Amino acid sequence: MRTTSFKSMECPTARALDCIGESWTLLILRDALQGCTRFDEFQRSVGIATNTLTRRLKRLVDQGLLERRRYMTRPTRYEYVLTQMGIDLFPLLVVLFDWGSKYLVNDGIAVQQIDSESGRVLESVVVDRNDLQPITVDRVLLRAGPVASAAVHERVEQVRELRESASGS
Amino acid sequence: MRTTSFKSMECPTARALDCIGESWTLLILRDALQGCTRFDEFQRSVGIATNTLTRRLKRLVDQGLLERRRYMTRPTRYEYVLTQMGIDLFPLLVVLFDWGSKYLVNDGIAVQQIDSESGRVLESVVVDRNDLQPITVDRVLLRAGPVASAAVHERVEQVRELRESASGS
Repeated sequence: MRTTSFKSMECPTARALDCIGESWTLLILRDALQGCTRFDEFQRSVGIATNTLTRRLKRLVDQGLLERRRYMTRPTRYEYVLTQMGIDLFPLLVVLFDWGSKYLVNDGIAVQQIDSESGRVLESVVVDRNDLQPITVDRVLLRAGPVASAAVHERVEQVRELRESASGS
Repeated sequence: MRTTSFKSMECPTARALDCIGESWTLLILRDALQGCTRFDEFQRSVGIATNTLTRRLKRLVDQGLLERRRYMTRPTRYEYVLTQMGIDLFPLLVVLFDWGSKYLVNDGIAVQQIDSESGRVLESVVVDRNDLQPITVDRVLLRAGPVASAAVHERVEQVRELRESASGS
């Protein structure tokens, strides 16, 4: 069981993990991004216990990734619709899918992501918006921002040193 | 506590989550990608309990993301070095960082990812390797592969229908 809160960490990656870094949560988001909106659709798809699903959906609503909307009265029924914050996780799930497809499907290909127009299998690559060049590990350095703590400054320096010693300079 | 194994699911995203979908694990990988290799470096960085860190590192070695190498004898000391499988998670962490930076830093910017050459802040976008166009949610359809079960075929069909009704065709 986790005792430290990631939320108080300064790193956006840590905060993002606090927000979505739980496997069921990411599977629910995967389903939402594939068009699921209703409780029973999520349940059927991920095979999760009712109380767990209720908790996870509530958390996603509280954190702003899903919006709960009534779509029926008598009986009252709600659906869960992605917010822009939730939709913006789509690229992450695309990259996760491709990484899983590369390393974890020794038993054969069950499913692929294809381009809806051309039918080609999509092959994701993470690039910088400005130059469209891949963002590789040796390309990235960290920079401390205005509200950085001493710990962040230290880490930024550490990464720079490790990177320099790795590149032999 | 999770009872269902994601490993037996056919979706590469589910399998990837089974492999890495735990917050500490992803923070350890973040640190490894920033150059950490030693137990105490990981511990200092993520502030994780010793036994939890030991367990997570062992799991990452067992799953092929890290390799355990002896770097000192008397006393024997090991370091943890990323494999290609681990290095290939870097784009995922870049995207996660940017999503966190977009939505979870209301208290100000503590750290940014910059280009080591130009010093520009990197802005990640996930594109298709072939046409360099962004992979957006409305662009992606699923296709069942050779080993797809009936459930996968059903899901693929479902996604297609939901997508068609969403686009109004």
